Amino acid sequence: MIANAEIIGVGTELLLGQIANTNAQWLSKQLAQNGINTYYHTVVGDNLKRVKEVFQSAEKRANIIIVTGGLGPTDDDLTREAYQEIYQDSLSYDKRSLSKIEKYFSDNNLQMTDNNKRQARVFYQALVIENKVGMAPGMIIKKEKATWVFLPGVPREMKQMTLDDVIPYLKKHYQTESLYSETLNFIGIGESHLEEEIIDLIKAQSNPTIAPLATNRGVTIRLTAKADSKAKATKLLIQTKDDILSRVGQYYYGSNNLTIEAKLVELLKENKLTLASAESLTGGKFASNLVSVSGASRILKGAVVSYSEDVKVNTLSIPKEVIERGTVTKETAEWMANQVSYLLEADLGISFTGVAGPNEIEGKEVGTVYLSLSKKGKTIVSKGHVFQGDRDMIRNRAIFSAYELLFTYLKENYS
Amino acid sequence: MIANAEIIGVGTELLLGQIANTNAQWLSKQLAQNGINTYYHTVVGDNLKRVKEVFQSAEKRANIIIVTGGLGPTDDDLTREAYQEIYQDSLSYDKRSLSKIEKYFSDNNLQMTDNNKRQARVFYQALVIENKVGMAPGMIIKKEKATWVFLPGVPREMKQMTLDDVIPYLKKHYQTESLYSETLNFIGIGESHLEEEIIDLIKAQSNPTIAPLATNRGVTIRLTAKADSKAKATKLLIQTKDDILSRVGQYYYGSNNLTIEAKLVELLKENKLTLASAESLTGGKFASNLVSVSGASRILKGAVVSYSEDVKVNTLSIPKEVIERGTVTKETAEWMANQVSYLLEADLGISFTGVAGPNEIEGKEVGTVYLSLSKKGKTIVSKGHVFQGDRDMIRNRAIFSAYELLFTYLKENYS
Repeated sequence: MIANAEIIGVGTELLLGQIANTNAQWLSKQLAQNGINTYYHTVVGDNLKRVKEVFQSAEKRANIIIVTGGLGPTDDDLTREAYQEIYQDSLSYDKRSLSKIEKYFSDNNLQMTDNNKRQARVFYQALVIENKVGMAPGMIIKKEKATWVFLPGVPREMKQMTLDDVIPYLKKHYQTESLYSETLNFIGIGESHLEEEIIDLIKAQSNPTIAPLATNRGVTIRLTAKADSKAKATKLLIQTKDDILSRVGQYYYGSNNLTIEAKLVELLKENKLTLASAESLTGGKFASNLVSVSGASRILKGAVVSYSEDVKVNTLSIPKEVIERGTVTKETAEWMANQVSYLLEADLGISFTGVAGPNEIEGKEVGTVYLSLSKKGKTIVSKGHVFQGDRDMIRNRAIFSAYELLFTYLKENYS
Repeated sequence: MIANAEIIGVGTELLLGQIANTNAQWLSKQLAQNGINTYYHTVVGDNLKRVKEVFQSAEKRANIIIVTGGLGPTDDDLTREAYQEIYQDSLSYDKRSLSKIEKYFSDNNLQMTDNNKRQARVFYQALVIENKVGMAPGMIIKKEKATWVFLPGVPREMKQMTLDDVIPYLKKHYQTESLYSETLNFIGIGESHLEEEIIDLIKAQSNPTIAPLATNRGVTIRLTAKADSKAKATKLLIQTKDDILSRVGQYYYGSNNLTIEAKLVELLKENKLTLASAESLTGGKFASNLVSVSGASRILKGAVVSYSEDVKVNTLSIPKEVIERGTVTKETAEWMANQVSYLLEADLGISFTGVAGPNEIEGKEVGTVYLSLSKKGKTIVSKGHVFQGDRDMIRNRAIFSAYELLFTYLKENYS
């Protein structure tokens, strides 16, 4: 059977505009990747009559109906009730969910009310989907011509259930042609330059498709292959990927969810190099971003956030006359990187000084940034920029530019 | 007539999950603020039959129907065609739009095709809405029981037309009561404690409504008053706000978009206090968050990110025997805060040490965190926590807990 889906979001908060219906977006993407077409999204508030009517019209036009929200403990959670009014199916408690809820309340010494038990109710004929990260279980029900899927509205719970249970179920029961994708991540090359290098491949694309995208974290190329088996798709993907990387491979650092921070931590680890940062403009954000990567402690010695002049002079021991010539200069950036690598006993030092705004500093316009990379107290490379954007954008661009510096240095000297 | 709206998004890109339907969210919020209820959101792809059916079902259940998207120049822009199939209204070119499009093409030396003219087509009986930032004009059509509003899908164009023309039109033609809101932000009190303190007010609420919400940045209370003038609404809001703050005012730090970071910078500035942080667990994120606030340079001296033991011993000069007794201890946290305030010559020092995971450290479980606040090298207060969550959640919770410590200290000693 050819699958066509409708995704229904239940919740007044959506109709008040308090949140966007990102659940429908995410679900549509998952379905599309698995060859299932979505024809409609609908959002309805916590109102029994209207939820019921929306369900009835969905049942006429779709054969997969995915409902998010309205499964919680309160009186305005009405998804089960609306379905029940249409089909008169009866509900019972799901034992596993019920004991999980009871345990939560007793563990936390909280009084459990009957309302809390409501979340554990499932339809007799439903395939119950375990909620591994929350309370309310999900359900899959095959009913007449349609498959109904009920999921909680909490994105984390909805996503986990979709990936673990819903997609495998739908793939098993519907004819689907699958899409397989790989996103190639690049750093140190702009979108237009990248496109130029592969323009003939872009023009000749068919399967896989080739979609370059500029993000504020660099440029990516998304390859999407359509095939009836993963093996065939992978073969198509690899061929195109090889073609692309033979042209612009030096800017490629990894695929899909691999971040440049994780890649840098990996490269530093491989080469047994340690790093320290001296951050004025960025206030510690460069170091903090690296710390997000598990295992960063093996490569990051630490950082000095030298936000005031005193700290530059006293802690980093930068000569007073250097600072007097200007805090936002190439010279100061180089001293910062050299001194921090020395002070924190790191192999590499990297530094940031600049003007985040709103006002200019020392006659330097907002967006002026100097970076420097140093090895064992000796400058390797320094760079000056003038970035556009607000305070946070300027800081993020400076950090990304430092990633470029570091990545290029490591690629050229350690591989 | 009581207004009730349906918002229809037309575009296959929405059904593929390439973008979220943020247009519907934004429109719902605008309508709600102007006292118009939205009962449904619908999304449908670029398919004439399905768009037409969605229009027909909207016409049965809503009296304001706002359609975004499908007005552009290409063959799959089908919004006008679907409406025309239902009502058989005829189309003509809007002169102003047409000459704008022609001018654009001649100014840019581009060849104009007939397709480009398609965008300028409007229904005879429509009130044409000028598109000040793009090509396709919008339309408002009163048809039988419903008002139809057609807007481009491009958010910038849609928003400008809504604010300039659609909302004023709807307010004039429908009975609406305006909503005015204020969000009160709290720190240092949990949601259930806050609710307990004002439970009688919550139970007796009518106008304004009182909605507490727990976020990962503390608890907020959203007050929403309904009135026919801003003055009346403000009066209602202030009265309820005063009632609430007379109970829990010590945890209140500001309203609406004021962040706790901005509030802390403001309090420190007012009291001419400077601050420095010693960050192990958080890797510089506390300092970096404060630096996001413009003017932070007046209060933040800097930070030492002591991610390795060496840095704790050599840079922060913490006695080796303290570190040997444990890096994730209250004692180490206190030394870190004391030493960083001394080293960076700051009035206040604040420190973070802990286990972000994935593995435990020194037999301490993942999530264990110690914080300390120090004044001129003397400990004021220290705190231990065990936080749940992944690496970034643990770090963010630690930072938020430091905000609490600092806010409480400043409130109790400097106001």
